[in-house]
Amino acid sequence: MELHLDSESTIPAYVQIRNQLREQIMRGNLPVSARLPPERELARSLGVSRTTVVSAYDELKAEGLIKGHVGRGTTVVGGATWTAAQPIAWPAHFSNLGRRLIRHAQPSELLTLNRLSAQPDVISLALGLPDPTLLPLERLQRAWEAVVGRVGANVVGACSVQGTPAVREVIAARMRERGAAVGPEGVIVVNGSQHGLDILLRLLAEPGDTVLVEAPTYFGALQSFLAQGVRLVGVPVDEEGMDVQRVEFLLARYRPRFIYTVPTYQNPTGATMSLERRERLLALAQRYQVPIVEDDPFGDLHFDEPPPPPIKALDRHGHVLYLSTFSKNLSPGLRVGWLAAPDPLIERVALLNRVTELHPSTIGQHLVVEFARQGWLEEQIELARSVYRERRQAMDAALRRQRLSEMRWMVPGGGMFLWLHLPRQVDAQDLLVETGQQGVVFLPGSLMYPASGPRNVCRLNFSMPRQEAIEQGIAVIGAGLRRLLRRPAETADEPVVANPIV
Amino acid sequence: MELHLDSESTIPAYVQIRNQLREQIMRGNLPVSARLPPERELARSLGVSRTTVVSAYDELKAEGLIKGHVGRGTTVVGGATWTAAQPIAWPAHFSNLGRRLIRHAQPSELLTLNRLSAQPDVISLALGLPDPTLLPLERLQRAWEAVVGRVGANVVGACSVQGTPAVREVIAARMRERGAAVGPEGVIVVNGSQHGLDILLRLLAEPGDTVLVEAPTYFGALQSFLAQGVRLVGVPVDEEGMDVQRVEFLLARYRPRFIYTVPTYQNPTGATMSLERRERLLALAQRYQVPIVEDDPFGDLHFDEPPPPPIKALDRHGHVLYLSTFSKNLSPGLRVGWLAAPDPLIERVALLNRVTELHPSTIGQHLVVEFARQGWLEEQIELARSVYRERRQAMDAALRRQRLSEMRWMVPGGGMFLWLHLPRQVDAQDLLVETGQQGVVFLPGSLMYPASGPRNVCRLNFSMPRQEAIEQGIAVIGAGLRRLLRRPAETADEPVVANPIV
Repeated sequence: MELHLDSESTIPAYVQIRNQLREQIMRGNLPVSARLPPERELARSLGVSRTTVVSAYDELKAEGLIKGHVGRGTTVVGGATWTAAQPIAWPAHFSNLGRRLIRHAQPSELLTLNRLSAQPDVISLALGLPDPTLLPLERLQRAWEAVVGRVGANVVGACSVQGTPAVREVIAARMRERGAAVGPEGVIVVNGSQHGLDILLRLLAEPGDTVLVEAPTYFGALQSFLAQGVRLVGVPVDEEGMDVQRVEFLLARYRPRFIYTVPTYQNPTGATMSLERRERLLALAQRYQVPIVEDDPFGDLHFDEPPPPPIKALDRHGHVLYLSTFSKNLSPGLRVGWLAAPDPLIERVALLNRVTELHPSTIGQHLVVEFARQGWLEEQIELARSVYRERRQAMDAALRRQRLSEMRWMVPGGGMFLWLHLPRQVDAQDLLVETGQQGVVFLPGSLMYPASGPRNVCRLNFSMPRQEAIEQGIAVIGAGLRRLLRRPAETADEPVVANPIV
Repeated sequence: MELHLDSESTIPAYVQIRNQLREQIMRGNLPVSARLPPERELARSLGVSRTTVVSAYDELKAEGLIKGHVGRGTTVVGGATWTAAQPIAWPAHFSNLGRRLIRHAQPSELLTLNRLSAQPDVISLALGLPDPTLLPLERLQRAWEAVVGRVGANVVGACSVQGTPAVREVIAARMRERGAAVGPEGVIVVNGSQHGLDILLRLLAEPGDTVLVEAPTYFGALQSFLAQGVRLVGVPVDEEGMDVQRVEFLLARYRPRFIYTVPTYQNPTGATMSLERRERLLALAQRYQVPIVEDDPFGDLHFDEPPPPPIKALDRHGHVLYLSTFSKNLSPGLRVGWLAAPDPLIERVALLNRVTELHPSTIGQHLVVEFARQGWLEEQIELARSVYRERRQAMDAALRRQRLSEMRWMVPGGGMFLWLHLPRQVDAQDLLVETGQQGVVFLPGSLMYPASGPRNVCRLNFSMPRQEAIEQGIAVIGAGLRRLLRRPAETADEPVVANPIV
């Protein structure tokens, strides 16, 4: 029988002794009839008082695990009362949301991708984040010094549930520059725009309600919506974004709780909704009194001319709930996203955030403000534009060099993604397995459709990989594709039809 | 007619012109029949090309707002199609959660408190946060430097949805010190333990389900639970914490989804559940297969002997879902809380967090790790213990000096709160209004009961105010109480009964 006392522990010695004896009895190391050492002897060997051991034995006696016999010392009598305890059968304890998570949040494509991404030196075209090497460490150091100098320990202190006034000023000013009449009181900070999506869904929809989304759309939104049990109706996307012509019919038929759109450098297609469509969509939202959730993480990252103004800039009656973030133009670990919305929404979001998270992370907000004050935010965005512009060009050129006439893509005007159509008979998931073996991964596009979508599309990220990695990655994709095309197709009789360019 | 073009704007000039004209037509500044300037003239005065003005006019014509007449120029014909657009009637658009928020998350006591707290130089005994002046700024600076030196731009980069491995190591090691057999894989980081509560509620309960809580209990948990539409059943609290004797009956009768408890230096009573009760509660949880949510933000902050081990340390079959945070022993703006739970829970929480927030705030995690590595975390906790111990003593002494025999309280062994019973005929809300006028605020205890609770209790915080502020605050409370007691009581016939000491 071995016992170890931790004299540093906050657990009283008698409890440590009791717990360890109990454990050994339960495990069968101390079987029924085993004799425990006399109290005085155990106390001496452990360097504790006899009272300590007596207390431990007394409790084990009260639990029915050991018994003292006059003249014969103390023996184990059984652990029956304890073996009755069973682990909880968790699946039966989860809510509907808890159960839906397993069904919707772990598609096989993602598991394959995770497995392949875990290789060393993998070239990933699968993510959608800024290149961290663009952020100068020296500015991160100086920004922190300046913030601690200005706000002291408040840099890690509590903040208002709406976010700090300073960061809301920065956000509102940037939105006004893009034409949206938004003041700091119309902005609420959230932990990234993904959090904003969750909040809006909780506040506006019940399970079973319908939401209109683009098809394809942002994968993370799809997963969030499906996990909450919302019914999704998809609107096709072409070069000018969501096909707004179809929206009126869908609004009338499904009466959705809101329309979710990423109008600018859409994730995943890179398409940008034309100004005309923005206005028509807004007019429809007004006519049918349906809110538009405009998710705009990429609007800053334009490579050629600036994009049309956000739908929020055209909104005069508060139909647009605008989400954006500093995750794509600065850095994702800041967790500073925001919602700009009419007062009744801001009020509810503040209440929900207070009861669910108290307040957003303070530190990131202070860093964003410092970057904005120093002019570093705009410099950072300008740098990202020029670097990602080059990488977009490199990806386009590398794809052209493949001379695979059945591959089609549109060169996006900004953002982080290029949407590639493979020959129709190719499943992007098969291609991923093929290229993954060569150390190149991307996101199969079938993940991004609300219902079943085409299997021959993929989302390629050009913001994170360097130019050489992009070139190598596209070469591997081209070679993999050629190998797949040479294989006898399982659907050999199906006609090969060129896909529309998206 | 005045038009202002912003040449820096990303909105095309013709859209700016069109929007401003549309606005003026809608507002009636340009009434029906008003004549617009000829295109060439307006173009010249604005310094744009004629085509720009033509485009703007064309769109307004298409909208039916203006009309061109050969030889007579362009006139306003009406805004009928646009006045049809109305703001959304938001209340009808909110989900059940959105509606419940207004009902439950804004009690009048809180609004009164907010109003009174907004005064300058107010002495607040109302909050429950660490004193920020205890945190050495020089260490915040050095910690940041060290972290940026070690992880570079990753300090603001994305992290795993479970949190960084390093911070989960720190957390697991600290839990093991308190006797809980937890490894880093059994820990998931959340944005403060309030976020953890929200997650557990979403994963384990549907609206209408029952949860067992202490009465009184943590106000933020109550609000979160009520907003989600959960039915709450309260278990009274005495000097040894939750009255566990009553729990079995309630488990059998209500079949709650879980038991929520703050067993150590409870918020708001300061009471600590005895080891015996912890074990009995766990045994009941095992027998009825009901999870215990153990919320333990204050366990580190013991002033006399250490508290009994967390219930999690006694848990051998995974019935305890343990929440804690660095918000109370370090700083709340870090937003680093955690859940330690069995694997099936950790897996669902990770999935839910991925779809709702992507990942927790990275920065705070890195700072916590640095503080732990340098030994500063333990020093900070030691400092907090000694400072708050003195303040607790000061509050106790100040209350004694009031010599108001009808006031009763228990001196807590740690944490941040002292729970004060006023004479039975006094409503703490009335006392708050009285002392608020003298610049002293606290939290009326009636807020903290799941159903209606006593009106004569208040929660006094001693971690944030300095000793002088505590003494002054208690003097003001004593004086206010005396004034209230001299007033003719509205319930004068009711016998004055001494309250049990909690």
